Amino acid sequence: MTNDTNVTWHEHRVSRDDRERINGHRGCVIWFTGLSGSGKSTLANILDHMLCERGVRTAVLDGDNVRHALNAGPGMLRETHGEAFAERFGLGFTAIDREENIRRIGAVAQLFCETGVIALTAFISPYRLDRQRVRDTMREGDFIEVFVDTPLEICEERDPKGLYKKARAGEIKHFTGIDDPYEAPEAAELVLHADGERPPEALAVEVIEYLISRGILPANRPATAH
Amino acid sequence: MTNDTNVTWHEHRVSRDDRERINGHRGCVIWFTGLSGSGKSTLANILDHMLCERGVRTAVLDGDNVRHALNAGPGMLRETHGEAFAERFGLGFTAIDREENIRRIGAVAQLFCETGVIALTAFISPYRLDRQRVRDTMREGDFIEVFVDTPLEICEERDPKGLYKKARAGEIKHFTGIDDPYEAPEAAELVLHADGERPPEALAVEVIEYLISRGILPANRPATAH
Repeated sequence: MTNDTNVTWHEHRVSRDDRERINGHRGCVIWFTGLSGSGKSTLANILDHMLCERGVRTAVLDGDNVRHALNAGPGMLRETHGEAFAERFGLGFTAIDREENIRRIGAVAQLFCETGVIALTAFISPYRLDRQRVRDTMREGDFIEVFVDTPLEICEERDPKGLYKKARAGEIKHFTGIDDPYEAPEAAELVLHADGERPPEALAVEVIEYLISRGILPANRPATAH
Repeated sequence: MTNDTNVTWHEHRVSRDDRERINGHRGCVIWFTGLSGSGKSTLANILDHMLCERGVRTAVLDGDNVRHALNAGPGMLRETHGEAFAERFGLGFTAIDREENIRRIGAVAQLFCETGVIALTAFISPYRLDRQRVRDTMREGDFIEVFVDTPLEICEERDPKGLYKKARAGEIKHFTGIDDPYEAPEAAELVLHADGERPPEALAVEVIEYLISRGILPANRPATAH
């Protein structure tokens, strides 16, 4: 009898195509990369607002929602899971730990993408190889690398978290752009010149135009689609 | 001038409330737990279909989409990231590695939930403490533990992947229900008796009724909401 019942149990998933059809747009990962203070997070959030207004399904991944849980450091894990666990799994800031940080973010962004969502990620992600590895895990066209190309001088002048000042004073080591390299993308899908000359809203519109040109978003979608 | 421009840059996120309002339902995590072969994955996928038909935003997390990327083992990581990386970060099946496996799944489910999505997870997750820790990271009411309470005899008779046979033969060690414990929930939000007497569709409807009773789904939502 159990076997009889099993026959009727259909295991198939709701496909990505089904979800994209329901959503009225395709899923993808928009991977913002650039120096600290370049405007990645600001841009991601403005773009997110614009997309939500169009009825597009989105998710934003950035330090705020990733570092305190998924990619928690030893300090947090010690409190919840104990010393041995924290030592084994807590992410620090060594080269290999940063690699794992980006790898997991890529894996989660892909999970969102596979549910037909447009995932926006805002991490410095300074190394070409790390970004390439994320790209390699995705289907052709799913990974959209957006280089937020703000000159170091402007990032340092903005210094929203006071990190450049600390890095210059030697209080923070291995700070991207100061004593650690930023490897600019060689073939990003988009390069945004976020030097303050154009408002970030205009840069976000550039991304939307790109998404329309790639067929990820439908053209002329009404503002109130739902 | 850069500073002037910065003033207009609004950093605020699209809130969870906004997303839930757009979606027309709340986000939550439906955490299926139970023995191998209990029907967790089948149930999650049937429920997922039913929810999608109601226009509900969902995501399914299970071994199929988690173990090959986010929680990859050393074998896969060796190929993409090299030996040292694989050794440091590859997840195996030791107690502590299984703990981390569940912790990460919880963190990702929470990310989905925070974007107003109903995340369905289907993992044995045999230990009370691991499930409790996931619950503890979430807001009151967000974590809905669903115990798929299928007797071991039925799971073993089904044995869809032939794992019980291998465990009985000693070819697999530490197999839940055979030589490793399954700690049944003591206060699950829902207990489903998936012994084959009732079709899984009826069990999925039980979950939907629960979601409506908790105000997560609106009552009487039309089948074509979009």
